[in-house]
Amino acid sequence: MSTDLMPNRYTPGEAEVPEREAELIKRRDSVLAASYRLQYRRPVHFVRGEGMWLYDPDGRRYLDFYNNVPCVGHCHPEVNAAMAKQAGLINANTRYLEPKLVNYAERLIATFPSELDRVVFTCTGSESNDLALRIAKLASGNDGVIVSTYAYHGTSAATSMVSPNLGDAVKLSPSVRMVRLPGPAGVPPSEAAAFFEAEVRAAITDLNRRGTGVAALLIDSIFSSDGVWVDPAGFIAGAVAAVREAGGLLIADEVQPGFGRTGAHMWGFERHGIAPDLATLGKPMGNGFPIGAVVGRKAHMDHFGATARYSNTFAGNTIGIACADAVLTILQRDKILDRVLSMADRMRAGLESLAAKSAGIGEIRNAGLFFGVDIGLPDSGAAERRAMALNIVNLMRDNGVLISTTGSNEDTLKIRPPLICEEEHVDRFLVAIESAVNRAVDG
Amino acid sequence: MSTDLMPNRYTPGEAEVPEREAELIKRRDSVLAASYRLQYRRPVHFVRGEGMWLYDPDGRRYLDFYNNVPCVGHCHPEVNAAMAKQAGLINANTRYLEPKLVNYAERLIATFPSELDRVVFTCTGSESNDLALRIAKLASGNDGVIVSTYAYHGTSAATSMVSPNLGDAVKLSPSVRMVRLPGPAGVPPSEAAAFFEAEVRAAITDLNRRGTGVAALLIDSIFSSDGVWVDPAGFIAGAVAAVREAGGLLIADEVQPGFGRTGAHMWGFERHGIAPDLATLGKPMGNGFPIGAVVGRKAHMDHFGATARYSNTFAGNTIGIACADAVLTILQRDKILDRVLSMADRMRAGLESLAAKSAGIGEIRNAGLFFGVDIGLPDSGAAERRAMALNIVNLMRDNGVLISTTGSNEDTLKIRPPLICEEEHVDRFLVAIESAVNRAVDG
Repeated sequence: MSTDLMPNRYTPGEAEVPEREAELIKRRDSVLAASYRLQYRRPVHFVRGEGMWLYDPDGRRYLDFYNNVPCVGHCHPEVNAAMAKQAGLINANTRYLEPKLVNYAERLIATFPSELDRVVFTCTGSESNDLALRIAKLASGNDGVIVSTYAYHGTSAATSMVSPNLGDAVKLSPSVRMVRLPGPAGVPPSEAAAFFEAEVRAAITDLNRRGTGVAALLIDSIFSSDGVWVDPAGFIAGAVAAVREAGGLLIADEVQPGFGRTGAHMWGFERHGIAPDLATLGKPMGNGFPIGAVVGRKAHMDHFGATARYSNTFAGNTIGIACADAVLTILQRDKILDRVLSMADRMRAGLESLAAKSAGIGEIRNAGLFFGVDIGLPDSGAAERRAMALNIVNLMRDNGVLISTTGSNEDTLKIRPPLICEEEHVDRFLVAIESAVNRAVDG
Repeated sequence: MSTDLMPNRYTPGEAEVPEREAELIKRRDSVLAASYRLQYRRPVHFVRGEGMWLYDPDGRRYLDFYNNVPCVGHCHPEVNAAMAKQAGLINANTRYLEPKLVNYAERLIATFPSELDRVVFTCTGSESNDLALRIAKLASGNDGVIVSTYAYHGTSAATSMVSPNLGDAVKLSPSVRMVRLPGPAGVPPSEAAAFFEAEVRAAITDLNRRGTGVAALLIDSIFSSDGVWVDPAGFIAGAVAAVREAGGLLIADEVQPGFGRTGAHMWGFERHGIAPDLATLGKPMGNGFPIGAVVGRKAHMDHFGATARYSNTFAGNTIGIACADAVLTILQRDKILDRVLSMADRMRAGLESLAAKSAGIGEIRNAGLFFGVDIGLPDSGAAERRAMALNIVNLMRDNGVLISTTGSNEDTLKIRPPLICEEEHVDRFLVAIESAVNRAVDG
């Protein structure tokens, strides 16, 4: 596995690339920094998007079952109209009074439990987590952060240091502790809550013994980068109580599960029956416009705001607010969450039927339209499972359907279609995955 | 002065606010976190922008001589058309091949000295500086950062810790060192370079004695938050050489001076006759769309990219690229830099003429359309100078012209009009500042 733990990528020389794309890659590599990665063995090249579909320059279309940013679909006309209308009016910053900012903040806060009643806007999920950590450290007076084994929380200096998913070469903070999740540790559901609480308590003890203390338990409630470990619902409650006992805060990273991805709720933490101290938002919030937020409790926000000004030039600007407002309207008015649940049921039934026929599919986990599907034959080793998952992803890409991998061994398929997918899209996906799994198992 | 060093702000109860705005502030305060600040004693309320002007709900217009984000003017139709067109086509991310990203990267790189030949896109100036620090620390193997006394480099955890401008309550990194600038220290121009080099060498010695080493000298080449200390051109060269001798990098924070603000050059560092190792871009890049970048040298970028993936979901997305591309086209095609120089000359002449008549105006400093104007009577103490500057800013606001303050004592007027300002705007500004200075001095 490469040092940066992103196996589903283009590696020069490993796969044949058509001349047009080879030429573009060459130009790209001569101006973009080496930290960029292209997804898939043979990179995809897109020039148009619409709803569930992305189109290459030849007009060939790919079904997008991977991108959670365009949550209401690529190039949604209503979001675009809101963007264009606002761009023609004003793009104010938050140091000026402007009513749309306040209107949206009220609408957003109304989707949260009543104790989460204040918001700060950011431009990215990384900025949201970075700011939430600053607030939690100030509020708790502590420095320690607890995350899951294979967590990913952002690209800033501070968030990359609590993101073991970035690989060995990216330094971890001395004050971060990783805790094991019950699922990947093979703990049965009945013991999951106690196991996770014990892991977190041990981390707290260690942080306290070093004088670091615990500032926050920072988790994405569906544990997407660990491999999508969503069940049993509620298993994190005891751990959260332990962190609060120790003076720490719960930061719910909602960049992945938020805005209805789980179907049953607007926010992923609701699935676990708890309310966080801080919730961090990003990706789907503006359907692609760079906007994020931290939602939290007045007391913590006052503590931070009394001494620190947080001035983010672009964050909360009126164009971003207009996009986010349009997304929230669409999610609520069109009852997208109901659709998420019914499409998720259809996908789950189809995947279970495939699993019954194919030895290549292991456990299927999902919360709404965020699926993790374990790949590998019963006797496969880790490298074989990873290779098979990678084959499936790339066979599907060649067949015009986009997904990728996740998990500590990257042998779990990561499937996150835009929330507006319909029966025909689910069925097309199911045909493609069946074909790819069959080929990968036979091959 | 308030703990967060932002004197030009609204403080509840200090000034009478009309009912409509008071109501909006009340709603705002009940949903936005306490870290938000409203500018001016009586906040401004805008619902429309166009070119150099912002409009309140009653249609009253304000001349914008403060916002450097809308560098080609508020709601520029050409930038908006590019945004809308791209939003209707595709908003691809950088893990997919997409030609517009590569085209723009080539155009941007072409504006830099040839040794700065690689770019990474971000969403904000804070993200740019945060990433540049990560790259510099990895490339140098050191941890120390040297900044100016009153520097501001961003809102992320890492950048706020090297931003003394944020005030005493925001913790500084143990490995940051502040160095004095020759101008505010009263050093004559002929000794400025030697003074600054000696300051930086002392900081390096201290960092080395503690085993920290120097990763970077991080400076904004016009030292905007220190009070706009632009001269003498070239005074930083010896300090830069000292940092490089010690194994550190020069990071030029171009968020303020970049994209032609200084008129004579596209990039602020060019004024000082040096080329940085990393340049960080932000604010004006997309005329308000959240986009930034780090431009650097292949060797440093390769070192970082070989081990760390940097994946920023929104950064380099095609809508942001389309906006940035339109801005660059306008700057180059319409010869905006030439206009910056001629408008800056007109402003400088007008301000010098005012200074000759009024004892309230001290030194006038500028590089292109970034002006710092020291305020205070010859016998004024620091608090009186600050109060007079604040009065002038708020008298001008009441008279429909927007500027603010900067500097360690916040007694320097900070004036940064959009780069497309014309004679009539400069003249309107000069009338307003003369009236405000006269009233402030008499009052």
